[in-house]
Amino acid sequence: MDRIKVFSPGSITNLSCGYDVLGVCLENRGDEIEVHKSISKGIEIESIDNYNISNNIDENVAGIAAQAMLKNIDIDFGFKIIINKGIKPGSGIGSSAASSAGTVYAINQLLNSHFDNLDLVRFSMEGENFVSGSYHADNVAPIILGGITLVRSISDLDIIKLPSPKSLEVIIIRPNIEIKTSDSRRVVKKKVKIEKMVQQSANLGAFISSLYSEDFDLMSRSVVDEIVEPDRSMLIPEFESIKKISTESGALSCGISGSGPSIFALSNNSETSKIILNNVCSHLDKVKIDYDSFISKVNPKGIKILD
Amino acid sequence: MDRIKVFSPGSITNLSCGYDVLGVCLENRGDEIEVHKSISKGIEIESIDNYNISNNIDENVAGIAAQAMLKNIDIDFGFKIIINKGIKPGSGIGSSAASSAGTVYAINQLLNSHFDNLDLVRFSMEGENFVSGSYHADNVAPIILGGITLVRSISDLDIIKLPSPKSLEVIIIRPNIEIKTSDSRRVVKKKVKIEKMVQQSANLGAFISSLYSEDFDLMSRSVVDEIVEPDRSMLIPEFESIKKISTESGALSCGISGSGPSIFALSNNSETSKIILNNVCSHLDKVKIDYDSFISKVNPKGIKILD
Repeated sequence: MDRIKVFSPGSITNLSCGYDVLGVCLENRGDEIEVHKSISKGIEIESIDNYNISNNIDENVAGIAAQAMLKNIDIDFGFKIIINKGIKPGSGIGSSAASSAGTVYAINQLLNSHFDNLDLVRFSMEGENFVSGSYHADNVAPIILGGITLVRSISDLDIIKLPSPKSLEVIIIRPNIEIKTSDSRRVVKKKVKIEKMVQQSANLGAFISSLYSEDFDLMSRSVVDEIVEPDRSMLIPEFESIKKISTESGALSCGISGSGPSIFALSNNSETSKIILNNVCSHLDKVKIDYDSFISKVNPKGIKILD
Repeated sequence: MDRIKVFSPGSITNLSCGYDVLGVCLENRGDEIEVHKSISKGIEIESIDNYNISNNIDENVAGIAAQAMLKNIDIDFGFKIIINKGIKPGSGIGSSAASSAGTVYAINQLLNSHFDNLDLVRFSMEGENFVSGSYHADNVAPIILGGITLVRSISDLDIIKLPSPKSLEVIIIRPNIEIKTSDSRRVVKKKVKIEKMVQQSANLGAFISSLYSEDFDLMSRSVVDEIVEPDRSMLIPEFESIKKISTESGALSCGISGSGPSIFALSNNSETSKIILNNVCSHLDKVKIDYDSFISKVNPKGIKILD
């Protein structure tokens, strides 16, 4: 095999109760990444979208992840990576993760799956570090493993694939502004009160229990963030209104996706998802805020080979 | 029914990764509590053990919990509570919780189950507050509900009964010293770094996942405490040695039970449990430290009616 094309999907992280550890792979929105083997060693990137991202392999997350990968294998050929981004950078649904994870996934296919999934997460994290200033695997893990994942440890990489209730749906609203992950991480307080830690960890534990038991009432009570959301939400226009409208429209919960500005709502019923989306969009139209929006099931498989 | 006698078991809490929220009901060690209806209103306590605990209903957790209960029901009779403690106070395996929860459970039986389990937890928490200076339900919840519990919230009381893998066993070592819960809570830092919070909550989430999936390797990696244990362990003689010997003897993990001084180890094999217990006891005998020790399965039922 000399070429491959993959679809590398978006993802939401944190889910209010699992800061830096929870991630959900989406079905809609994603990057298309085509990789060709090339005779000359090394990596070359070509972008065929309108996002104006550098093709310099030291400044593009795909190049950074791919280089981290190739340091670990001795080959006498190289790769050309053609990226068509479907996720706007800085949107909070894992744009950089989609590019870095999709790239290493595709290259690994051309290397006859020389590396395992944890290796791919590790290489992708180099891209995440470049773009955000810190190592985290909460976006790349669900894209590579599929479904809903918990990153137990990044130092001694340990990722748990959690169950994804079939009826669970995610509604995404992205107000059309950009928030840099590094800026959004800066507003997070360095220390938290022990009582808040206890409350937040209990919510995470309860959310994980709700995935196994499919107890959506419990899920609704658990997907709560008293630590990061109060500060980050100030960066997002109409956040409180969108949250209020979503929950009044039947959402199980609503919060900031990743570092924002995307906002997620959860629902366990397709009809309810549509009502939530309609009501939130009507409001944003009324207050004249530009946005993108969509509904997605949880994507159980992750990155998909297109051809 | 005019009288009842119950066995109210011990419990371990925190389990390293779930400070103030996780609790496990034990089978061995517990208080025997006999309650008689009496003609005169109000509550009377008689202790028939050697622990020298006050019989004053305002200074005994059983009396405090029972009074909290009786404020919520209009009856023209009272109760005599006879307590035979089997759990040494200040041992870290839920001595106060066993007395308060056992008492309200027994009285509720004589009231034809007028109150539900959450009510009983709420009343028992008054006893916990009296003895430790703060409301917490992590010991009383598993005694009343049985098994392993997660307290998601105490303000809006929300308790989740988690699965208990059948092969799971707890080894308890209690060095013969007393640590007051209130003292042990004082050494806990008021704030934690956000990175530590992320790590600790990921471990709690992973532990809960391991209970559902019965993945004992994951359980072993998750039952870790980098926040409270480093400070509290200094109050417990030989803690580090006991932990080292336990894990070298095959324990899945080892940590402080509740606020100590009891130490728990987890095992998923009866033979291993015995080896752990033997090796730790040999060490304590050698260094001449007095202790109590036992092995217990997880008690799925909680408080038991004796007659």
